[in-house]
Amino acid sequence: MTSQARDRSEPVLIVGSMAFDDLELPTETAKDVVGGAATYAAYAASLFAPTRIVAVVGDDFPSSALESLSAHGVDIAGVERKAGKTFRWAGRYAANLTSRTTLDTQLNVFADFRPRLPESYQRSPFVLLGNIQPGLQLEVLEQTRSPRFVAADTMNFWISSERAALGEVLTRLDLLVINDEEVRQLAEDHNVKRAARAVLAMGPKRLVVKRGEYGALLFDEHGMFFAPAYPLENEIDPTGAGDSFAGALIGYLASQPSIDEGALRRSVMMAATVASFCVEDVGTRRTAALSRADVAARLDELRTLVRFSS
Amino acid sequence: MTSQARDRSEPVLIVGSMAFDDLELPTETAKDVVGGAATYAAYAASLFAPTRIVAVVGDDFPSSALESLSAHGVDIAGVERKAGKTFRWAGRYAANLTSRTTLDTQLNVFADFRPRLPESYQRSPFVLLGNIQPGLQLEVLEQTRSPRFVAADTMNFWISSERAALGEVLTRLDLLVINDEEVRQLAEDHNVKRAARAVLAMGPKRLVVKRGEYGALLFDEHGMFFAPAYPLENEIDPTGAGDSFAGALIGYLASQPSIDEGALRRSVMMAATVASFCVEDVGTRRTAALSRADVAARLDELRTLVRFSS
Repeated sequence: MTSQARDRSEPVLIVGSMAFDDLELPTETAKDVVGGAATYAAYAASLFAPTRIVAVVGDDFPSSALESLSAHGVDIAGVERKAGKTFRWAGRYAANLTSRTTLDTQLNVFADFRPRLPESYQRSPFVLLGNIQPGLQLEVLEQTRSPRFVAADTMNFWISSERAALGEVLTRLDLLVINDEEVRQLAEDHNVKRAARAVLAMGPKRLVVKRGEYGALLFDEHGMFFAPAYPLENEIDPTGAGDSFAGALIGYLASQPSIDEGALRRSVMMAATVASFCVEDVGTRRTAALSRADVAARLDELRTLVRFSS
Repeated sequence: MTSQARDRSEPVLIVGSMAFDDLELPTETAKDVVGGAATYAAYAASLFAPTRIVAVVGDDFPSSALESLSAHGVDIAGVERKAGKTFRWAGRYAANLTSRTTLDTQLNVFADFRPRLPESYQRSPFVLLGNIQPGLQLEVLEQTRSPRFVAADTMNFWISSERAALGEVLTRLDLLVINDEEVRQLAEDHNVKRAARAVLAMGPKRLVVKRGEYGALLFDEHGMFFAPAYPLENEIDPTGAGDSFAGALIGYLASQPSIDEGALRRSVMMAATVASFCVEDVGTRRTAALSRADVAARLDELRTLVRFSS
């Protein structure tokens, strides 16, 4: 995307993890892959809007990774570098890439992460809260000044362990983005439509349910919207696809003149589009290389995929 | 649907099983439920086109079930009644209805089923071959005279055991309708897009992949089309939903002036719509009670579900 187009967008603040991932993929094994939810989301959001990131990395984190984000127009003033090691996740994917096993999680400097917003971030109109403790998500919101749109993405770890703080976060959200399993778990109902209604009753104004290769559903006061996933032929690494989805979604919304039903539906289509690229290479490689033209072309294909005459 | 509208449609011939099902559903247990692929498909097809059925039942099969089909305009001249018991299937569904266990299968009179087309059926322009032995499917085709459009639905049992005859059937098909698992199994590839291309290379002109609550994908020479499933709130019994899908699809096609890309895409939307009703009650109850107005209203909701402005 050209900086000219991005100039009309409002800034997006993303808070979440930056990490090293060790990936056992069906096609290859990759170690020390720069990842983390905030990293993926920031690359995706920066396609559409000026993006700011709050995260923590250790002294082992490569400066080149931060410089690459900067080169994409991501403001990294909020990335704290602490003595110690960067958060590390190791996982193994099944042959069909639909399930994965966590082999190791080392929180390292992420264990004591206390997000601090630089002064320049505090008036961010768009905020994406990544998958961190709900108590910390609330601390982030306390440091912002009347954000226009607050979204949170993924909360699997906290559904059973931090229900009270999570409940408070939910009431503060303009949009909750979670996956199929999380919405069923949160609502304790296996039916996605009933579960979505139950989750909306917990506070968020809107809900997007991510269903991986099966697309995504938007639930709001206007009803439901369904965006298909782009059917891929060469799936390499799904790591970060959900984070890219959320980042693209909020980035696109921040580029829109108003957040109406049309903008929301388009944002989910855009999110599905950007997330599909993420899966086509290891780590952030494909997402970081994306041009706005790549995205526009695939969005067009996605549009064709569901087009029919009556 | 009014008979007036149906008068403009071409006849559809359906060959498959008629059965008793014993169902252990999460909400209830139902015994001696009249089912079978041909029954479900015939109810669905008859919404759109005059429908003819070839099947076999035992002397225990209720005349009222056949009369109900007749009352829906289904020609039952091809239903053979044989001494003995009707095919019976017993199954238990998981709480979320996404998986099921077969508890018992008694082929009974279905074991020796040799489909015989009454003279009046032989010029059927639209043919739907249900999940019977590929050898028998070929016998059906030998009894037809230049059908305009031949579809087959579901072939799980025959993918490993009757590969040669199955291969011959595939080359005779204008459309193959199978589920996610079957397309992967048939192509020996877990990626649905690659698997679809491999299956198309085996002969069928078009392929529809049924994905249950995740919708359906049409693959043909024009590319891909995706129809979402209608998100249901009250799922009772998925038995026969796939058969209703296939029946509605071919019935709708038979009602169209030409089988072009638009008609095919609409037929998949219509199939998804009709199949969604099937799940809302036990057995054929909901499908048999459907009016064309019910279908039109839900199709409109399905259309809204994927509508967005660019």
